[in-house]
Amino acid sequence: MTQQAYRAHFRCFSGCSGTYPTTQPLYRCPTCDGLLEVHHDIDALRNRSAQEWRDLFDARYRGHEFPYGSGVWGKREWIAPEVPDDFIVSTYEGATNLFHARRLGAEIGIPELWVKQCGNAHTGSFKDLGMTVLVSIVRWAHHIGALKSPVIACASTGDTSASLAAYGAIAGLPVVVLLPRGLVSAAQLVQPLAHGATVLALETDFDGCMAVIRELASRGLIYLANSMNPLRIEGQKTVGIELTQQLEWSVPDWVILPSGNLGNAAALHAGFRMMVDLGLTDRMPRLCVAQAENANPMYRAFLANSETVSPIAAKKSHASAIQIGNPVSAPRAMAALRAMNGVVEQASEDELADACARADRTGLYTDPHTGVALACTFKLRDRGVLTANDRVVVVSTANALKFTEFKLGYHEKTLADVRPQRANLPITLPADVERIAKTIQELSAR
Amino acid sequence: MTQQAYRAHFRCFSGCSGTYPTTQPLYRCPTCDGLLEVHHDIDALRNRSAQEWRDLFDARYRGHEFPYGSGVWGKREWIAPEVPDDFIVSTYEGATNLFHARRLGAEIGIPELWVKQCGNAHTGSFKDLGMTVLVSIVRWAHHIGALKSPVIACASTGDTSASLAAYGAIAGLPVVVLLPRGLVSAAQLVQPLAHGATVLALETDFDGCMAVIRELASRGLIYLANSMNPLRIEGQKTVGIELTQQLEWSVPDWVILPSGNLGNAAALHAGFRMMVDLGLTDRMPRLCVAQAENANPMYRAFLANSETVSPIAAKKSHASAIQIGNPVSAPRAMAALRAMNGVVEQASEDELADACARADRTGLYTDPHTGVALACTFKLRDRGVLTANDRVVVVSTANALKFTEFKLGYHEKTLADVRPQRANLPITLPADVERIAKTIQELSAR
Repeated sequence: MTQQAYRAHFRCFSGCSGTYPTTQPLYRCPTCDGLLEVHHDIDALRNRSAQEWRDLFDARYRGHEFPYGSGVWGKREWIAPEVPDDFIVSTYEGATNLFHARRLGAEIGIPELWVKQCGNAHTGSFKDLGMTVLVSIVRWAHHIGALKSPVIACASTGDTSASLAAYGAIAGLPVVVLLPRGLVSAAQLVQPLAHGATVLALETDFDGCMAVIRELASRGLIYLANSMNPLRIEGQKTVGIELTQQLEWSVPDWVILPSGNLGNAAALHAGFRMMVDLGLTDRMPRLCVAQAENANPMYRAFLANSETVSPIAAKKSHASAIQIGNPVSAPRAMAALRAMNGVVEQASEDELADACARADRTGLYTDPHTGVALACTFKLRDRGVLTANDRVVVVSTANALKFTEFKLGYHEKTLADVRPQRANLPITLPADVERIAKTIQELSAR
Repeated sequence: MTQQAYRAHFRCFSGCSGTYPTTQPLYRCPTCDGLLEVHHDIDALRNRSAQEWRDLFDARYRGHEFPYGSGVWGKREWIAPEVPDDFIVSTYEGATNLFHARRLGAEIGIPELWVKQCGNAHTGSFKDLGMTVLVSIVRWAHHIGALKSPVIACASTGDTSASLAAYGAIAGLPVVVLLPRGLVSAAQLVQPLAHGATVLALETDFDGCMAVIRELASRGLIYLANSMNPLRIEGQKTVGIELTQQLEWSVPDWVILPSGNLGNAAALHAGFRMMVDLGLTDRMPRLCVAQAENANPMYRAFLANSETVSPIAAKKSHASAIQIGNPVSAPRAMAALRAMNGVVEQASEDELADACARADRTGLYTDPHTGVALACTFKLRDRGVLTANDRVVVVSTANALKFTEFKLGYHEKTLADVRPQRANLPITLPADVERIAKTIQELSAR
């Protein structure tokens, strides 16, 4: 097995000494309690030339041999080189459409506008990319005795718990979701419940849940799948690699990414960084981190030219998955922003909803987070930061089929803080062929 | 362009003489008023050997070159050979995961149980496979003057209107959805509304709508995208070809297909037929058409050993897309059943819902139609029609994210005609670490 030649391990993101196996249940640096990252042995990976890596990845892309058809495991040497085939839990992640948004791009003056459809995934969000890595490593770590308990836990209400529960169910590993009682409805949890996760509604608040989770993890009773876990970033970093591959290994000028906890910004950077380090590409795209105005701590840091992100109290946003005031991966994301000559932009509730509606009219079907990214794209184009010559990729993080109430609310004009510009509702007509024919002829003439 | 060498045209499904261009707005045989089919010039297609076709399809399958990355257009010579690249409207259809359902298969004694995830598509259903062909041909036909009006219309409330509206929006072609007023809610129409379709709620019933539509079509004001249209079958036939390709061109023993209007059964047969005719495979799989007990006209015909399907009044089913009493494509599907040594099976509301829940516990996330197919699979295995040595592919036709109410109703035990065996709801606990630890340890011991 070629991947056995490669090695990856945890190390401190801030530079403390010491390395740790990725199979060890470790979530923070034992020295400074800061973030961890997965470090790959880049010198070992140089045993293949850039062209050999490109050829290998292209040969595996969407192939039928398990697990290489997965967009994540097709690049396994760069992700999680130690996991043997038999322990990999995969749903054929990635290989999502890079949609050339010709009509929308023409409207806004960016002919090369592309949307990376990460929500078109097994559980309907980009979280699958990271979860396949985390759950596979847990399975492997439990097998070799590095983990006492195979129970995996998280405290998410949304896409993370859905993805974790699905991958746990495929692997036959128990999954626990811990939440404050009364804070979330069964409807928000329908995916983890359907996948048989044990959902514990605790009589406490979110901080109380986190205290319980940390205690359980310290006793070795659960493995923590929260967004601090650097294994998820390893899988998510394939987004940047894959979209470059889909552009025939040509780096786009910009990537626009909706982000709340900021792990995906870190992941995007990690992927582009690795391609440069191994010579597959000669530059990185510029990054735009797109935030909801109601949850914009990184935007504020950017405006203030600050090196650190100060926590804020996030207000309610339709882009619920990025409604985060104190992002876990802020230091990672700030490093990404610097390395990728990035900017941060924000979108109001009104702007994100209308951006969704505008995109939907051109055949996309966009969730509110993609709406944030698109609204920021429109603003950057208006200001001339993006130009007609730029190739721009917007990352769509979730499937809009998860947001029917949001869509319906927009078109029925009942959505909080939104004044719809493009609402569309049924038109009632008598069953009169002449009358209907007239309506249709007006359509054709438009 | 190699595809220019190939030809396809409409002809009568029942054998009347005459051929018609596929760009002609024709929905029924002008001689007998029966169904049409698309006929391909098989002799011309024999200019490539079976191996050459397999190699060509495999090379394109992984490609990034428009439009070949699409599972439909990667096989364009077999589908719609005349349409030039610039007129193709594609969302990178197909290439959906063929999920090896190891856990579910082990539970029921079919180790080689696979689920073809067709719902993981741009609009969340397999309808995209057919719609990309129909809308592309309309665009081309309008360009060459074969169609006066580019307005495309249908009378669907569900996946068909969602798919048509999205493809119309991408192409910039107007889409009209005609429905009886009061019969459907905005929630059921949220996709077509978001895509800017003109939804006309007519003051009449379904028959009245169909009368209007036929009149509009006869005047050349609209192009009809309903399920009678044989162009959609051409795209849908790639399901069988693609799943065989994913099995390294090895034909499975069985394909289990949920079906109501029966067009997809006809399409599946057409794909397998073409592979045999061109020597890519040497046999066809056996077919099981899976119907809801509440809408089972083909099941009744099968039991009665009848050559024809008699219309029935369909009762309400959670599998709403196949709640059809008078299937349009019945003659095509009966031919498929004969050719594929098929069977028809049915599932009650209780059986389909529980099959979904059982599958979801193993990491799938199944819509009610896939539930029908899985319930039929379980029954056929129990009866020994399916054996432990069979390789069985279940076709999943839609994304379960479209069916949140159904999932929630099951787990909250509020679903009509269903007594849930596998309901799962949150468990409320005090924030007591010892108590929670005990609950989790019981999980690990399971």
